[in-house]
Amino acid sequence: MSLADSQSRPDGPARGRPRSEVVERAIVEGVMRLLEEGVPLAELSIERIARTAGVGKATIYRRWSGKEELFVDVVRTAEPPDPELPGTSMRDDLIALLEQLRQRGLMTRSSAILHNVYAQMKSTPKVWAAYHASVVEPRRRLQVEVLRRGQRDGELRADVDVELLNDILVGPMLLRTVMRPDADLPDGLAEQVVDTLLEGLRPVSSPPA
Amino acid sequence: MSLADSQSRPDGPARGRPRSEVVERAIVEGVMRLLEEGVPLAELSIERIARTAGVGKATIYRRWSGKEELFVDVVRTAEPPDPELPGTSMRDDLIALLEQLRQRGLMTRSSAILHNVYAQMKSTPKVWAAYHASVVEPRRRLQVEVLRRGQRDGELRADVDVELLNDILVGPMLLRTVMRPDADLPDGLAEQVVDTLLEGLRPVSSPPA
Repeated sequence: MSLADSQSRPDGPARGRPRSEVVERAIVEGVMRLLEEGVPLAELSIERIARTAGVGKATIYRRWSGKEELFVDVVRTAEPPDPELPGTSMRDDLIALLEQLRQRGLMTRSSAILHNVYAQMKSTPKVWAAYHASVVEPRRRLQVEVLRRGQRDGELRADVDVELLNDILVGPMLLRTVMRPDADLPDGLAEQVVDTLLEGLRPVSSPPA
Repeated sequence: MSLADSQSRPDGPARGRPRSEVVERAIVEGVMRLLEEGVPLAELSIERIARTAGVGKATIYRRWSGKEELFVDVVRTAEPPDPELPGTSMRDDLIALLEQLRQRGLMTRSSAILHNVYAQMKSTPKVWAAYHASVVEPRRRLQVEVLRRGQRDGELRADVDVELLNDILVGPMLLRTVMRPDADLPDGLAEQVVDTLLEGLRPVSSPPA
């Protein structure tokens, strides 16, 4: 979710005015600048962020409950936006979802900062939990929903465990991004994963002549 | 590979005598003890390890080129051993390989030390590279070989990209172990992953009456 999207959250703090958006952007960019300068996450105090962004600490606390929530918004802003689901078929929706993960993987690789940010995030349990709750988990729920719809529409076997299938779909992208940074994330990988799974692994018996 | 296995490496240093094995074990256990006491990887010097194990530094350097190589052996000793492949079919071999990953995942979860060790390893590029080269990569090559044999034996479609399929198989186990420590790693998960992939996702058209 981008900052623009978060403006329209009905239950969030009032962020509708352009002035507010400018301030928010300055804060997020301030954090990004500090990270680019190599300041470790542990030393990113609200005080220091406020100083860098040229705002008061209260201005930050009015928008974010703390460092963790702010930091997660910074990461979210740096990541590729959530995809528009074409809605034409389960296959197309899954490819769109995996393609976003692929883009995110490519971005993590090309950006030393983002790479560093993920690593720090993972070793800081509170931040990781916040990122998980507000980014990873909604993404996972959306994908599971796409799979459930596929089952209803007859595109997916009824006996497949959709929670497991979700991990099977996401696994290779994460594996290549996180564990094997030397592995390829080529164009068309999302499609290849989805179609390999759809087709299954067993050789097709030759059709009757 | 266990320490016992490494004894028989023809090109390694002579480690055949029991005395040598005892010393090796004392060193590996010394490192484990330091980790259990919460000493961070960065502070694990060869000097400190030698003191803890009651050996001289030269004794360690005779066996390991440095801290990284020693540390990887410590992790390998703590992990479940590589599985015996039944060799009865591609399906059975794959299940055995994934079951070992599941066991490793369960172990990582139940052991705070091991969990901590993996986290530190990942944030120490030299150690991660050594672990990757001597543990992850051989395991990956073995699994790819199982898939290639499956293709030759007609258990696996000839047009499936085995490198990708390998990541699809391993992905969900790693995802649940590393990224979603709250997710289930139930008995039978290895079998479920393999069979889901073998069957494919498309609903089976009903057989002719």
